[in-house]
This record gives sequence, structure tokens and C-alpha cells, in this order.
Amino acid sequence: MKLVRYGPSGQEKPGLIDAQGQLRDLSAQVADIDGAALSPASLHKLAAIDAASLPAVSGPVRHGPPVARVGKIICVGLNYADHAAETGAPIPAEPILFLKPSSSIIGADDTVVIPRGSVKTDWEVELGVVIGKKASYVTEAEALDHVAGYTIVNDVSEREYQLERGGQWDKGKGCDTFSPIGPWMVTKDEVADPQNLGLWLDVNGKRFQDGSTRTMIFPVAKLVSYISEFMSLLPGDIISTGTPPGVGLGQKPPLYLKAGDAMRVGIQGLGEQRQATRAWSRELA
Amino acid sequence: MKLVRYGPSGQEKPGLIDAQGQLRDLSAQVADIDGAALSPASLHKLAAIDAASLPAVSGPVRHGPPVARVGKIICVGLNYADHAAETGAPIPAEPILFLKPSSSIIGADDTVVIPRGSVKTDWEVELGVVIGKKASYVTEAEALDHVAGYTIVNDVSEREYQLERGGQWDKGKGCDTFSPIGPWMVTKDEVADPQNLGLWLDVNGKRFQDGSTRTMIFPVAKLVSYISEFMSLLPGDIISTGTPPGVGLGQKPPLYLKAGDAMRVGIQGLGEQRQATRAWSRELA
Repeated sequence: MKLVRYGPSGQEKPGLIDAQGQLRDLSAQVADIDGAALSPASLHKLAAIDAASLPAVSGPVRHGPPVARVGKIICVGLNYADHAAETGAPIPAEPILFLKPSSSIIGADDTVVIPRGSVKTDWEVELGVVIGKKASYVTEAEALDHVAGYTIVNDVSEREYQLERGGQWDKGKGCDTFSPIGPWMVTKDEVADPQNLGLWLDVNGKRFQDGSTRTMIFPVAKLVSYISEFMSLLPGDIISTGTPPGVGLGQKPPLYLKAGDAMRVGIQGLGEQRQATRAWSRELA
Repeated sequence: MKLVRYGPSGQEKPGLIDAQGQLRDLSAQVADIDGAALSPASLHKLAAIDAASLPAVSGPVRHGPPVARVGKIICVGLNYADHAAETGAPIPAEPILFLKPSSSIIGADDTVVIPRGSVKTDWEVELGVVIGKKASYVTEAEALDHVAGYTIVNDVSEREYQLERGGQWDKGKGCDTFSPIGPWMVTKDEVADPQNLGLWLDVNGKRFQDGSTRTMIFPVAKLVSYISEFMSLLPGDIISTGTPPGVGLGQKPPLYLKAGDAMRVGIQGLGEQRQATRAWSRELA
């Protein structure tokens, strides 16, 4: 299943994309696509519905973040060997973790705002892993039982804030609009192998990132298990699993986003995001 | 006002502590003490209620976290000059920020769980600042208009996870039970000067931390303004403003929590927390 939340920001309704690509409403089946709706039992129930019996939604709609009330976004730093190399960092011995706040989440095609005065806003296509069942001290063998599905995360990052403003990466990762998520969450039964997905990111039509989850240092099962030793993963939490090479920081010379740029962000089988960028302004904040 | 959430975990009801120290129920006035209830208009309405008219709640009750659905906890590292000195770190040129996930939150007197295998679990009494009104790029002069009130946070920290496991502090800050908050939130009108509050922490009856918010490097107004340049602060968010000297890491030799320890954590005018510690076990997880 491809689960979506559609409609204006803050008023999204639950839906699914059927086999023909038609958006259909799920409001009569679930209140929202949130942690409760992502439990194995709930997903099992939703999968049993005849999609053709659901109301079709026509016309262009906004895709909101496919998960409501995300509790936390746990990000993995430098999880692709070649991306670590491009940033000049050593291959990590164990996963590097940091957090993005839920206030940074936007829909897949919403506008990314360059923070006031920022000159180093950067992009990072990442495979997002959506938790469906609480995970605490789970083994790698058990880990995927706790996953509801997968989505795309653009881990937008301000490199000056992240690396040059004293301290921890979180400062450059949590700005408003820095976490476009979606367009949908694909349940894990439709993702044959999360470690064999192409992922890419274009800026203004030029392909900058073109990688595969095959080259992750720590695969999804390892990440779920590892993170679950440091904090419980709860239904509706999202793990953003790191980015392949090709970020702006890695260009020679480095290249960053400016107002009016256009990003296209895709992962094989998980759809595509399209974000415009704009400058921060008090009126639009 | 002293606002509380009382009752079993996950079923807390809103309440207040009246001038006589009596707990009274607010269920008829607000659904919960959350971001919406903390808005200036809502607090104004609650303040107008004659507390004596509210149902008294008798008997011993558990104090849950005083804020429901906390969106994010933004923590400030090394914000007391003498604490920076005890950890061997230089005085930061600007605030160091990191995040704790909401899954780490417990009530003021709930049990702190030492993570499996942990030998460096530490304590940190901190002044918690509760946001009542969205703050984005606010000046220091405007900052306190966005604050609903104050509370106590014990920023429990696993130093090995934080400092020796590769990467970012978040890894040692977000374990389940690592954020006792409360016992109540005191509205800001009852806190004459947030920069002149004694704060202390005892372990097994011995006072380890005994400081004052007077020695913060960056005061509350500066922190609200500063953080609001990196991410919007939303109603129900909590800033944990750093800890004075006396943490376990700063003892010579360092001293850490073990199962069966008892903490008492207090801030002048904001009440007191009491946490026991226990070892992690699968049965109690």
C-alpha cells in the first residue's frame, strides 16, 4: 500500500494511492495515518480493503507528510562510505545519531525556506524508515518486524549552522521546512529489498546525487536494532538513514541552495518529491 | 499558577495547585495542559478562575509531566561557566544546542532506568522554560512574551553514549526515562526573576549540585531569541537551559548513578522532584 495524507497543511486527510495511481480517501477507515494506524494489526486491516470501494479523490491535491504526529526523527550521519569521503570525514565505527524536531517537517512538494541570512543551505536525499511497532533493545533479526514502511526524506541541512556555530549538528538540521517527507509511505511488503534502492536528487535539472542504498555502511535492520539500544522507537517515529554522495558541501567548490531553486528528490519505488526554495520573510513565516 | 497533570502514566488529568497547596482538578476547564492550554489567552482565562470553586483532589497522586504532547526539548550545553570548567570544556562563544526526544519524558517522581550495560549514567538539574506562544526570529526584548512558565528538568545523561560512542551528544541524552519534568509548571508571573533561582540536586542525601541561574552564560531571554533563529519554538516546547557544576562526570574520580540510588532535584519556587533509579530489565521495559 501507498499511504498518504492529502489536503491543506494542518487539515490533511488519510488516503491511499491504488494500483492505478488513483488517490482514494481513507477517512472512514482511520482517523489519520499516525502511529496507531501504522501498527501491524491496523495495516493488516487496511490491506484487506478493496481499494475500488473507496471514494476516489479527483483534481490536484497537496501531499502532506505521510505520517501525522511524528514523535521523533532520528537521523544517521555519514552512513554511506562515499558520502563520508566527500565530506572529509572518516568512516564511522558505529552509527552517528542526531535528531530533527517535528517542527521541521513539511509535505513532499512544499516550499523549503532558506533561513534568514543563510548561505550554506544544502540537500540530502535519504531513505526514511517508518516505525510501526515499539522497538526497545531489538536484535537485527527482529528489527524489520518493527518497521511499517518506507518513505523519502530530504534531510535539508544548513552547513554553517551545523558545523561552524559551536557544538552539535542539530543546530543546522532542525530549521522550519528542513524535513520534506513523502509523498507517501510505502508499506514494507511492497519494498522487496530496502538495501537495493536507487536514490537521486536534482537541483535545477542537474543530477547531483545518484546512489543506491546498497552502499549504506549500516543497513536498515542494523540501524533499527542499534538505535533501539539508546531510545525506544515508537510507532510513527521516522529514521532517516543517511545520504549518498553529491551534497552541496561535497562539490568543488561547494554549492548551496538559493531562493528560486528547484529540487527533485526520488527513491526507486517510493515516488518523487519536488521542492521550490524561497528566502525567509517575516510575512510568509 | 502551578499547573499539573496528575494520575497514572498516559491517563493524566489537568489540575492546579492552589495557594494552600491543595491539588484541584481542571478537567472541566481544559482538555489537557498542552500547547493550546499554555497560550496567553488560555492562561489568562485559567488565572481568572476562583481556585476554591474547583474540585479538590485528595490522597497521594502521581505527578505526570506537566506538559502534554511536548513537541521538542531543546537543550543548551555548557551554559554555566563553572560547569563548563568542571567538564574541561571551554566557555562556548554561542549557545550549544541539542535535542532530547519526547519519548525520554517521565513524571517528576517516576523511576529513572539505567540503560542496559550503562556504567556512566549522570544527573543534571536544569531550569526548564515552557513555550506558550510561537517564537520565530524574536528579539531578546520580545523573548519572554513567548514563555508560558518554568519547570524543573533533570537532564539525565549517559556520558559514555554521549561522548565516547562516536558523534553527537543526542546518543547519550535521549534514553527512555532520561527527562523527568515537573512536578508542575509555574506560570511566569510567579517567577520574579528567572536569573536568580537557586537550584540543587542530591544523590542519596548528599548535595552534589548547588547553584544559581545567576551564573548562566546565556540567560533565558537570550536563549529563546537565539534558538528562534534556528527553529520555530512552538507552544508546549521546552527549553532545558543547562546545568550548574556538580554532575557525576565532574567528580574526582567521576561518580555515576547505579540501581537503587535516590535523587532529589529542586529549583527555588518550582518544587522538587524525587527519582529512584533501577536497572533496565526486559520485564519492566
